[in-house]
Amino acid sequence: MNTSPPNTTRAVRAREPGGPDVLELVQSPLPALGPAGVLIKVVAAGVNRPDLVQREGRYPPPPGAPETLGLEVSGHVAALGPNATGLAVGDAVCALLPGGGYAEFAVADNGSVLPAPARVSLRDSAGLPETVFTVWTNVFERGGLQAGETFLVHGGASGIGTTAIQMAAAHGARVLATAGSEEKCAVCESLGAARAINYRTEDFLEAVKADGGADVILDMVGGGYTARNLTALKPDGRLVQIAFLDGAKAEINLSKIMLKRLTLTGSTLRARPDADKARIAAAVRAAVWPWIEAGRLAPVIDSVFPLDQAAQAHRRLESGDHAGKILLVP
Amino acid sequence: MNTSPPNTTRAVRAREPGGPDVLELVQSPLPALGPAGVLIKVVAAGVNRPDLVQREGRYPPPPGAPETLGLEVSGHVAALGPNATGLAVGDAVCALLPGGGYAEFAVADNGSVLPAPARVSLRDSAGLPETVFTVWTNVFERGGLQAGETFLVHGGASGIGTTAIQMAAAHGARVLATAGSEEKCAVCESLGAARAINYRTEDFLEAVKADGGADVILDMVGGGYTARNLTALKPDGRLVQIAFLDGAKAEINLSKIMLKRLTLTGSTLRARPDADKARIAAAVRAAVWPWIEAGRLAPVIDSVFPLDQAAQAHRRLESGDHAGKILLVP
Repeated sequence: MNTSPPNTTRAVRAREPGGPDVLELVQSPLPALGPAGVLIKVVAAGVNRPDLVQREGRYPPPPGAPETLGLEVSGHVAALGPNATGLAVGDAVCALLPGGGYAEFAVADNGSVLPAPARVSLRDSAGLPETVFTVWTNVFERGGLQAGETFLVHGGASGIGTTAIQMAAAHGARVLATAGSEEKCAVCESLGAARAINYRTEDFLEAVKADGGADVILDMVGGGYTARNLTALKPDGRLVQIAFLDGAKAEINLSKIMLKRLTLTGSTLRARPDADKARIAAAVRAAVWPWIEAGRLAPVIDSVFPLDQAAQAHRRLESGDHAGKILLVP
Repeated sequence: MNTSPPNTTRAVRAREPGGPDVLELVQSPLPALGPAGVLIKVVAAGVNRPDLVQREGRYPPPPGAPETLGLEVSGHVAALGPNATGLAVGDAVCALLPGGGYAEFAVADNGSVLPAPARVSLRDSAGLPETVFTVWTNVFERGGLQAGETFLVHGGASGIGTTAIQMAAAHGARVLATAGSEEKCAVCESLGAARAINYRTEDFLEAVKADGGADVILDMVGGGYTARNLTALKPDGRLVQIAFLDGAKAEINLSKIMLKRLTLTGSTLRARPDADKARIAAAVRAAVWPWIEAGRLAPVIDSVFPLDQAAQAHRRLESGDHAGKILLVP
């Protein structure tokens, strides 16, 4: 662990925009370690939906981010920039990244690194940062979910969904989730959802209305779902948008927003400045890490692929057959 | 003032849904004074846009509200329900009403009554409640406008607009306003707008973008304005909708909401429970009444009509030629 890192790392990037087959494993220079950078020897990397969009060329990395795919890793600290604090070489950590996770070595900003929780294997903790940060800032900060409120998450069996169900339940909310099969619905309920709705056999809007409506909805579907989400909200409800698998254009009824005093908001995580991510990380460490140590939140791991099978990992995520997170190990 | 009120009052209501000519002045029983009710001998009543919509039959009064039009009055307390506190017969007050303001006597809920500010004539203070409550709860509470932020209000010369400009400026925000003529733009700037945009000769979106964008927008246009408002917002901006003169249907881009972390919200005042209005009234008394006493906020009065000319008052509001509030005096 304390030996000097090599000069290059195996890393996965897209040869050109396209399907999973454009992914290639290349030998690449180690990313530059800035003053507040933390070099991590990767144990595992999480695969996330934005990776698919980046591979297709529709979501270019922010300026300065590596072309190597991958927004989160777990591993051991291999080197520290001069301004990086609170960490030592060899520490077991997990981290949110601007990119570069599908590799043997990755660089994170000091503020985006968290200690790997003792209760989760170091490998599996690679599945925590992207979903925990996303759920925290969107459901808790923007959506202001309160204990006793009803929370609805779409795609309850996804990486985001499995994390959101557990975090909302740990917070004391009543949790509803949608998913596309009976098996996935069973996963949602095993994680703490009071009710999982199979959207292929049941109208989610009718089911949520019959349940009394939702105070907060976390949605990644958008398009035609948006108006129905607004209808599913209780008075003073909040709809938080984090993706739009069904399209970014949505038609809404302003009268409904006014009469029920609704809030429609959303955010992206990747484009935010390091200082924002550090603030979210500090809040996550204070509020969410204790849930992990208490056994109330654990990453749900769907499958693990070696780094040279990143294309298969992408196909698995694209198939929609997964439940929970997909990991890559170098 | 201390003589017993009569059993009936002259009152204006709509004979049937329709244009201004359906308004008729009738002799009507005094509204019932509930346990927390305050009977007010009216000095003046404010005319508001929801009155026009109610007259047209498209905005039925909430259950229990009188059919008589009118959402705000000033006057003297004529009688108090047994549970009404903090007031005495003869007090000069202004009040938000569930309806019934176009009359010689009106009943308000105790919590919706405020002392008439000393610095404003009792008549003109009839023009305060509806706009001050609306601006407070939408711009300050829901929109969270901060000193130093940029605030844009559409319809800057309207009753809501003239109030919003003054309140936002008193709070230390930079104020932009739109209006439909050079004269109205001059009114906006005289009230504290740093820049008024004549939307008939200039594209408001280009003007606001050239100014650096808005942190909070108060909009009553809706329809095609909604997408443009979202474009005019800075990152973390808030769009607050209080009406939709251009229609309730709006097409929005969820990607824009996520990338800029925008919030779209809104509310109506009339349908809220008395307890909500009392909470808003207490906040207004603490935060806004001092601005009035300091000379930083005053109702802008466009015109005053006698009660039997309510139809003319409605025509004036419908013409869009007014700047500020229109009042009726019994």
